[in-house]
Amino acid sequence: MENILLAHGGGGRLTKKLIEEIFISELGNEVLSKLDDSAIFEHEGGKLAFTTDSYVVNPIFFPGGDIGKLAVYGTVNDLSVAGARPLYISLGLIIEEGFPIDELKKIVKSIKEAASFAKVKIVCGDTKVVEKGSADKIFINTSGIGKIISHEISSTKALPGDKVILSGSIGDHGIAVLQARAQIHFKSNIESDCAPLNALVEKMLSSKNSVHAMRDPTRGGLATLLNEIAKSSNVNIFINEEKIPIKEEVRGACELLGLDPLYLANEGKLVAFVDGKTAEGILSRMKKDPNGIDASIIGEAKKGKGTVILKTKIGGERIVDTFSGEQLPRIC
Amino acid sequence: MENILLAHGGGGRLTKKLIEEIFISELGNEVLSKLDDSAIFEHEGGKLAFTTDSYVVNPIFFPGGDIGKLAVYGTVNDLSVAGARPLYISLGLIIEEGFPIDELKKIVKSIKEAASFAKVKIVCGDTKVVEKGSADKIFINTSGIGKIISHEISSTKALPGDKVILSGSIGDHGIAVLQARAQIHFKSNIESDCAPLNALVEKMLSSKNSVHAMRDPTRGGLATLLNEIAKSSNVNIFINEEKIPIKEEVRGACELLGLDPLYLANEGKLVAFVDGKTAEGILSRMKKDPNGIDASIIGEAKKGKGTVILKTKIGGERIVDTFSGEQLPRIC
Repeated sequence: MENILLAHGGGGRLTKKLIEEIFISELGNEVLSKLDDSAIFEHEGGKLAFTTDSYVVNPIFFPGGDIGKLAVYGTVNDLSVAGARPLYISLGLIIEEGFPIDELKKIVKSIKEAASFAKVKIVCGDTKVVEKGSADKIFINTSGIGKIISHEISSTKALPGDKVILSGSIGDHGIAVLQARAQIHFKSNIESDCAPLNALVEKMLSSKNSVHAMRDPTRGGLATLLNEIAKSSNVNIFINEEKIPIKEEVRGACELLGLDPLYLANEGKLVAFVDGKTAEGILSRMKKDPNGIDASIIGEAKKGKGTVILKTKIGGERIVDTFSGEQLPRIC
Repeated sequence: MENILLAHGGGGRLTKKLIEEIFISELGNEVLSKLDDSAIFEHEGGKLAFTTDSYVVNPIFFPGGDIGKLAVYGTVNDLSVAGARPLYISLGLIIEEGFPIDELKKIVKSIKEAASFAKVKIVCGDTKVVEKGSADKIFINTSGIGKIISHEISSTKALPGDKVILSGSIGDHGIAVLQARAQIHFKSNIESDCAPLNALVEKMLSSKNSVHAMRDPTRGGLATLLNEIAKSSNVNIFINEEKIPIKEEVRGACELLGLDPLYLANEGKLVAFVDGKTAEGILSRMKKDPNGIDASIIGEAKKGKGTVILKTKIGGERIVDTFSGEQLPRIC
C-alpha cells in the first residue's frame, strides 16, 4: 500500500494498521499507546494554558522544516509566549486520498523529532481522509496544554516605559517557504527559523514579573503583532528600524520581490514587552539561548492610543499599520 | 463581503474583523475574548482528559445537525466516555476561499448553541483559509479538556461477565448524512442522532466503579467498537441481534442500499461494559436521560480471545468482524 486510501480514514482495519504501523511505532508513549478516545493525565493543580492551531503550509516540505515540525513548534510557541511550559500535544490530520505514505512517514518522523527536542508528548490524535481534490495533500491541527509557570503575561499588559525585545532576525520563514514554491524562481540559502521557544522563554522569566506581554510574530509578521499589542494595551510603540535584525539574503529577496520584511511570517521568534529597568538583564539571558543569540532591544512603548511608529534608518518616522490583505497565503 | 477571501486567513485586518464580528460576537466568553494565543484556566488538581477530532462531514448541513454541532458534541462525547466532565473546547477552522459567510455564521451559531446545551466553553480558536479547490468548503477540528470524575474507564478494562449496554438505536446518523447527499436518491424522515452524552454518562457513574469500558460508536459503527474492545480487553463478546434497537426507517434504508447497520456511524450513542450485577440499575438510570430512553442490554462479555459473535434473530451465530474498507466516507 503506497498511497493513502479513503479506507485509511474509515475507522476499520486499515485505520488500525495506519495507526499502529505509522503513528504508534514512531510516536508511541504510555498515554498515546492506550488508543482510548481521550488521553488522561494527572495535574497537581494551578493554572493551565490551552491553545489550538491548524497548519496548511504549502509546500509541505521547505528549507529548514516541514508541516509536521511547524505544527509541533507552532503550538509549543503559542503556549510558551503565554508563560506556560508546554506539556501535551494533540495531533489531528486531514489527508487527501492518494497522498504518498512515504511522505506521511517523513512527516510523522519529523513530528517525533520535534516533540522530543521540545520535550512535549503527543498524547492523542485523529486521522481523517478526504477524496482526491477535497484537500491539498495534508493539513495538521495541533492543540496543546501547558502549565503556567509565570505571572499573567498578556497582550493587554504592555506598559508605557516597557522595552520591546525581538529574539532574532525576521522574515526567514516567509522567504524560505516562498523559495520552495515552484512558481517563485528565486534562489537563496535562507532556511525557515522554525524552532521551539520554550527553553528561551524559561530563561526570560523571573520572580520579578518583568515580562508584561509576549507573542510570536507568525502570520502577519512583526508589524501585525506590534499593532495588536499597541491596540490591546492602549500604548504607542516606537521601533528603531536599524535595531531590527534582518539577514542580508532576506533583505535582498524582499527588495527583489517587493515584500516588506515587517509583514513576513516567522516560526521561531518572539517579541517581549519588558519592564525598562530589567530589559538589559533579560536580553543578556536571552543571548545565552541558541534561539536568542541575535536578540535585540528594538524599541519601546509610550503613552498613546495604539499606534506603531517606525524610526527609519535615514531619520524619518512612519506609521506601521496592520496589513489589510494577504501578503503570502498558506505560509503556516 | 459575502464570501471568505484568502485575506480572512492572513492574520491582518480582515482576520481581525472576521474574529470580532463572527466568532467573538457569538462565542465570546471571559477566556476566549482576551484573544491571546492561549486560553488560561485554573484547575484544582486531579486527572484531566484531553482529546482531538477533525470533522470533514459531507454535506456540512444534514437532517438533525451540521458540521458545527457535530464537532462540539463529538468532542464532548469522546471526553464523556472516558469518564470525564467536558469543560473546555478549542475550535480550529480550515475554510475554502469563496465559502459563503452566511453559512459560516450558521455554523458558528450552531457551535454556540451546542456548547451552551452541553455546558462547555469554547476557549481558543484558529482560522486558516486555503485557495478555492484546496479544501472542500470547511473542515473543523475540536480538541477538548475534561475533568475525570470516575475511576479508570478504558477499552482494556472489559471483563468476562460484563453486560454490554447500548444507549439507543443505531445507524441514524449514517442514514441521515447519506440521504442529505445529492447522489443518493432516497427519502426518509431519519435525522442524525447528534447529541451530547455528558449528562447521560454522569447518571451512569457511581461510587461502585461498575462501568469498566465505554466508547461511542461513531466511524465504523457498533461492530468496529465491539471488535476494538474485544481485542483490547481480550474477551469474546456475544451480542443478541434482537436486542439492538434499530429504527424501522433505518432498517428499510439499509436493506434498500445494501448497508449493514452494525457498521453505520452514530453521533449520540454509547456502549458501556458494566459489572453484570449492576447492569439493571445502570440501565434504569440511563432510561431517565433523554439520550438513554431506548437503552438496552444487548449482550455480554465472556472469556475469550477477542471475537465478537452475533446471535441472529433466527437463532444462528455469526462472527462480526471489523470492516476492512470504507463503507461511507466523510460521515463525520
